[in-house]
Amino acid sequence: MYDLLKGLRIVEGASFIAAPLCGLTFVQLGADVIRFDPIGGGPDFRRWPLAPSGLSFYWEGLNKGKRSIALNLAVPEGRELAIALATVPGQNAGCFVTNYPAGGFLAHERLCRRREDLITVRVTGSSDGRNALDYTVNCAAGYPQMTGPADDDRPVNHVLPAWDIAAGLTAAVSLLAALHRRNATGRGSEIQVPLSNVAFATLSTLGNIGEVMTSGRDRERYGNALYGSFGRDFITADRRRIMIVAITKRQWTGLVEALQLSGEISSLQQRVGADFLADESARFVHRAPLFALVEQAVGGRRFDDLADLFDHHGVCWGEYQTVKQALDRDSRISATNPMFVHTAHPSGETYLAAGFPGIFSGTERSPLRCAPRLGANTDEILAEELGLSGHEIGRLHDAGVVA
Amino acid sequence: MYDLLKGLRIVEGASFIAAPLCGLTFVQLGADVIRFDPIGGGPDFRRWPLAPSGLSFYWEGLNKGKRSIALNLAVPEGRELAIALATVPGQNAGCFVTNYPAGGFLAHERLCRRREDLITVRVTGSSDGRNALDYTVNCAAGYPQMTGPADDDRPVNHVLPAWDIAAGLTAAVSLLAALHRRNATGRGSEIQVPLSNVAFATLSTLGNIGEVMTSGRDRERYGNALYGSFGRDFITADRRRIMIVAITKRQWTGLVEALQLSGEISSLQQRVGADFLADESARFVHRAPLFALVEQAVGGRRFDDLADLFDHHGVCWGEYQTVKQALDRDSRISATNPMFVHTAHPSGETYLAAGFPGIFSGTERSPLRCAPRLGANTDEILAEELGLSGHEIGRLHDAGVVA
Repeated sequence: MYDLLKGLRIVEGASFIAAPLCGLTFVQLGADVIRFDPIGGGPDFRRWPLAPSGLSFYWEGLNKGKRSIALNLAVPEGRELAIALATVPGQNAGCFVTNYPAGGFLAHERLCRRREDLITVRVTGSSDGRNALDYTVNCAAGYPQMTGPADDDRPVNHVLPAWDIAAGLTAAVSLLAALHRRNATGRGSEIQVPLSNVAFATLSTLGNIGEVMTSGRDRERYGNALYGSFGRDFITADRRRIMIVAITKRQWTGLVEALQLSGEISSLQQRVGADFLADESARFVHRAPLFALVEQAVGGRRFDDLADLFDHHGVCWGEYQTVKQALDRDSRISATNPMFVHTAHPSGETYLAAGFPGIFSGTERSPLRCAPRLGANTDEILAEELGLSGHEIGRLHDAGVVA
Repeated sequence: MYDLLKGLRIVEGASFIAAPLCGLTFVQLGADVIRFDPIGGGPDFRRWPLAPSGLSFYWEGLNKGKRSIALNLAVPEGRELAIALATVPGQNAGCFVTNYPAGGFLAHERLCRRREDLITVRVTGSSDGRNALDYTVNCAAGYPQMTGPADDDRPVNHVLPAWDIAAGLTAAVSLLAALHRRNATGRGSEIQVPLSNVAFATLSTLGNIGEVMTSGRDRERYGNALYGSFGRDFITADRRRIMIVAITKRQWTGLVEALQLSGEISSLQQRVGADFLADESARFVHRAPLFALVEQAVGGRRFDDLADLFDHHGVCWGEYQTVKQALDRDSRISATNPMFVHTAHPSGETYLAAGFPGIFSGTERSPLRCAPRLGANTDEILAEELGLSGHEIGRLHDAGVVA
């Protein structure tokens, strides 16, 4: 975690991945993020994977470093406290992150009656107002048809909730941009980030829309091969699987030299009339004979030898690892990487947790804080943020409005 | 595009996806983004997919709305112009986005000699300094082993370059946070965003590290089934494929009602001793009989009937579509969605292009601008940003330093 946004206060009323990831990003950059949840936890409180204690690794991964207040949102007094929190006064407050319905008790226009310059960032499902989650947007955006073995035409959902992640980060960018404007003009913002917009905009960004509208055809499925250049997975003599990519000239030259393939590549170039160095797309067009050459060269060498060769020649490659293999042997996902710290979590387990993935040179990372227990900060938040007396807080507890 | 960051000036010297997506995000929020490229284009200038004209849909998707200057970066005078651009004075300038090597002529500490409060955001490959791209990081982070049909153990690379996207947005968040600090303190920043950190941090965020370190085992592969709750793809009577997810209580109730399965579900609950409404994880544990029930119910109904039923009951679902099918029939990816505009692009093709995926209520979207031709703004940038005379600009052209 870093202290770049120190002093900034964000209120989060959210569940699942996207909106909580937005809040987490602010925590990791130094903001004070107050998350409110229903007493007993929201719909994401028991999401798998679970710890042996029954608490969720998922919840405690997404909520690291936040402060937690638990409210009974089924009663008007609890909802009133959520509204009061989201609209607390002060130049560094008034930023609300949520995935609650746009028309409910946390509607922006209702909150604005309390604080006119409020910034609300709301992650929603579909741009047409319909219910949607990452998986029901992903299937509509064409990726499952492009993903998976080329010899199998069943669509493949990728397991990474990529649209949630992109939406959460888009929400964070939006909030910071809105804050930039508010600091300059005093004006608040209401922002919606529909998952479907995030997915469909990506098809525009990466050229898929132009490709399909112009050709009138969908892109084929190419398995693990990289589209338009050289890249695929290969198996070493000792049965380890590696991914090799050669997009730039240097990567291509490095690969050819490392595997001592210049003779074979020259012959192939003459035979097919292509220049693989000058034209990366020729590496894709003629991938069948190229893959065969690299398959044989990689298959005849052991992993450790290849690793040395590839690193020496600047080849762009990586090994396939399961998460366990990565944790067992990859120093990038270990406490030797300053992003990671071994930490005790509320689930009762101690394991590696990550701070912000970016690295600010010359700025120290402040200690990583684990997720709160649900409601761990209820009393302090009611006192400090809303100015309630101990007597009043006790009454709220007794009435079951807070926990 | 929106005008929230109007006045802000970003200089981008970058290729491929992550860093250019960071620049694109700033364009879409109103900043003036100047991109410099080598004369003739960088390593991403001919990336597939290509238009019939040979220009890249990918390049023109990632560079919409930027201004372009082409420089001969192989000669000192061209490199000097790049350095001068990145370090132009002014409160709203001095923000540089790149994926050039950290130790090269665009090293932050060298640029800082010209402008001490410079903010440099650099997307890099691996946190250990090694060469890496999205695909060579993805294989190391465990997702290909979790993705793909459960009856096939070959790792599946997802086709979406998700780590590039997450890294590009993380770079944008980092830059805005650094700008927030600079506005308050005058201090610049050097930020590195390694793709590998982005991927491995995600394993922390989503609970995978806790799961694997605690259990000592990797998660199995579940094909298109959602882990820990109810979700999978199903085929309708008229052979259309849909994704159905039921994570929340309301989604579960809606699904059971829509498919008139309450009797069967009650019997199943009694038989296995589970409460599917109260406990979403029971929907995953007992997925085999649940999938069989839903398979039969969906398989006995036509798509159009299911669509009505599901929407009426608030079921969370989506249809599998190829990109072409989506463009043909999904209004969310059409000009009826205010995010999208039909635009003529430098490739010579006219097709749908997206602005910012977030929606700022009450703030008008400014007209979407297509990508520039390479070097379209060379002269105006040299004159306006660097104050060069027409005579001097002519000399640079004659000497082949700019184009």
